[in-house]
Amino acid sequence: MAVGLHQPDQLLAVPGIKLAAGHCGIKKDKNIDDLVLIELEGGSSVSAVFTTNKFCAAPVTVARQHLHGQHTPRYLLINSGNANAGTGLAGEENALKSCQAVADIGKVNVEAVLPFSTGVIGEPLAVDKIAQALPQMFDHLDENNWLAAAKGIMTTDTLPKAVSRRVDINGQPVTITGISKGSGMIKPEMATMLAYIATDAVIADELLSSLLKRAVDLSFNAITVDGDTSTNDACVLMASGKSGVQIDSQNHEFIQALNEVFTLLAQAIIRDGEGATKFVEVKIEHAASMKDANNLAYTIAHSPLVKTALFASDANWGRILAAIGRAPLEQLDIDSVDLYLGDVCLIENGLPHPDYNEQRGQTEMRKQDITIRVNLHLGEFSTTVWTTDLSYDYIKINAEYRS
Amino acid sequence: MAVGLHQPDQLLAVPGIKLAAGHCGIKKDKNIDDLVLIELEGGSSVSAVFTTNKFCAAPVTVARQHLHGQHTPRYLLINSGNANAGTGLAGEENALKSCQAVADIGKVNVEAVLPFSTGVIGEPLAVDKIAQALPQMFDHLDENNWLAAAKGIMTTDTLPKAVSRRVDINGQPVTITGISKGSGMIKPEMATMLAYIATDAVIADELLSSLLKRAVDLSFNAITVDGDTSTNDACVLMASGKSGVQIDSQNHEFIQALNEVFTLLAQAIIRDGEGATKFVEVKIEHAASMKDANNLAYTIAHSPLVKTALFASDANWGRILAAIGRAPLEQLDIDSVDLYLGDVCLIENGLPHPDYNEQRGQTEMRKQDITIRVNLHLGEFSTTVWTTDLSYDYIKINAEYRS
Repeated sequence: MAVGLHQPDQLLAVPGIKLAAGHCGIKKDKNIDDLVLIELEGGSSVSAVFTTNKFCAAPVTVARQHLHGQHTPRYLLINSGNANAGTGLAGEENALKSCQAVADIGKVNVEAVLPFSTGVIGEPLAVDKIAQALPQMFDHLDENNWLAAAKGIMTTDTLPKAVSRRVDINGQPVTITGISKGSGMIKPEMATMLAYIATDAVIADELLSSLLKRAVDLSFNAITVDGDTSTNDACVLMASGKSGVQIDSQNHEFIQALNEVFTLLAQAIIRDGEGATKFVEVKIEHAASMKDANNLAYTIAHSPLVKTALFASDANWGRILAAIGRAPLEQLDIDSVDLYLGDVCLIENGLPHPDYNEQRGQTEMRKQDITIRVNLHLGEFSTTVWTTDLSYDYIKINAEYRS
Repeated sequence: MAVGLHQPDQLLAVPGIKLAAGHCGIKKDKNIDDLVLIELEGGSSVSAVFTTNKFCAAPVTVARQHLHGQHTPRYLLINSGNANAGTGLAGEENALKSCQAVADIGKVNVEAVLPFSTGVIGEPLAVDKIAQALPQMFDHLDENNWLAAAKGIMTTDTLPKAVSRRVDINGQPVTITGISKGSGMIKPEMATMLAYIATDAVIADELLSSLLKRAVDLSFNAITVDGDTSTNDACVLMASGKSGVQIDSQNHEFIQALNEVFTLLAQAIIRDGEGATKFVEVKIEHAASMKDANNLAYTIAHSPLVKTALFASDANWGRILAAIGRAPLEQLDIDSVDLYLGDVCLIENGLPHPDYNEQRGQTEMRKQDITIRVNLHLGEFSTTVWTTDLSYDYIKINAEYRS
């Protein structure tokens, strides 16, 4: 069902970053991996952002603590199939035990291991199974395992999500490769998704953190499937430094490539959104404030009536206008609202455009990739978010997830 | 599909209020009424609240103007099948023309007629058809036509919605009868719904308006299906005064009966919610502020993941906790959150209750009427909202509405 999403190709190894994927038994099907280990060479920089959900899962709590500890991260341990969320102190102990198991084999301090989990909430994590599988995982660590890792972190995803880019900085190649997962419960501020992006550039900690924040705002914080956010979920940016190429805040080509990797990984999540049959871009232009632009974009993107109309390929502009009319905006002049589907103007100055007819609207709505564009003619603030339609399959997937 | 909703019975006539329902041709099926006329005896008081959607429909604009005019309302004209919304100045002219047609026959000023429309957005209103049907409507005006009127205002509703109550005030009977419609696009602040409630009590204008506001806050502003609101839609409270019984703000028995009529009419809309298979009460207790209580109630009630779990009868408390965790609350102490399904405690102090098991949760979730109760243990503010689950049929109804 993924909308315009294909198997990743040409994933580039990132020198200094090794990965392994395997099956430890959290998922029942032995042919499906449920454990991923990432090893960073000493001297790597790491920055991460986590869910803003106040009920954050045990691994999020532990990973945050470890990131703020004395030891630079050397290992990331990710399991899929169990979120280790809603598990209280026992859950934190289990997350810590998994880290310790990695630390023992890797011969690092436990704080150098960051744990991540995704899957069902409220069930105890099978730490023994993880510990048992780890020696083999270490044996399989390899720089060319990005695709296997992308598959190993999947839950309801139908396709692995991974992107690579290479840029030349003063004649020297720098590589960026990333993977992501998560197809439902996607909302701004890090929602049921995991993403791991690595580069071999040399990036100072402070810059790494600001590059991550900016890239996330443009990508993972601009996608939404259903407005729900998750208790887990994180985005990690790693720089091994192995290329020897130092990046500063003026390396626009690198920053653009980095943002592109983030955006494609985020859009891949939407294209694989639960039950998605459309990939929808909502663009708000000339809002009076950034807050108004965002509020309007998400009011439209979350409207079940707009989303079911998108599923039906029905150019029901009445539902979009109704969403605009109820959006919590500080400034709205309904007589200056323009509404476009792709390049077709439906509403001009708040009223149906004289040249518009249903035929033209339906031609746009039948496309797989749809752009809804609203021009408020009030100010200088614009925003873009990406979302999906709301289909029978969304209900099917989410009503049957645990049964 | 309506959840625990039945054909209304024992509707009581309200002296001084006559109604007629008929077919004028807006809807294609000749056997389905699409026009309702309500006549109020001279001396009646009328108060109304309208949609807060900034794209309000032409009839809303006209009805507001007429209410603020020099003439007390004597007629309400309601058509179903066409919302006369997104129709600009031509739409307002059409709404005015319909009022004039009623005024001509009823021999009143045009301002004494309030117009209401519900149905498809963006199509011109067939005023000629309405005008042609009016003489016969006048002929059929009768105090006993409440049920016909309830049917005449239906759109995607599967059942008419109507409630009557009679209370004795100092030995004298006073009657309250009301009708409502609307099964999707239901959200607080008057969303795609129409409601007309009449009493033969004598109520001063100012009191009538405050009784209406309070009753709406407890009823129509406390229901939500999908978070969408509509461009039309109104709630009107009429007092004919024919019983001769004067109501003041201390007539608790009357006020309670009035609030009950409003609440049952509002709940009927939810029970007939588009694709509803469950009637869900979300109760928030001991929030730090009223704003927090409401924000939390609606975050849970609008969560597609919570709603699909309800549809699946899956006691997925992880999704409810995740909704609590992302709700925009000023105060939340996750270690003091209690969560109940009916009388079953799922979460105590932020963690799964030791006595809880899935069997107990599923027994509650299989019921048709479900209560989700969250105690925040922070303050003295409580709220209740009513909503539905999210089912295949919601998608079906909304994806196929216009085709």
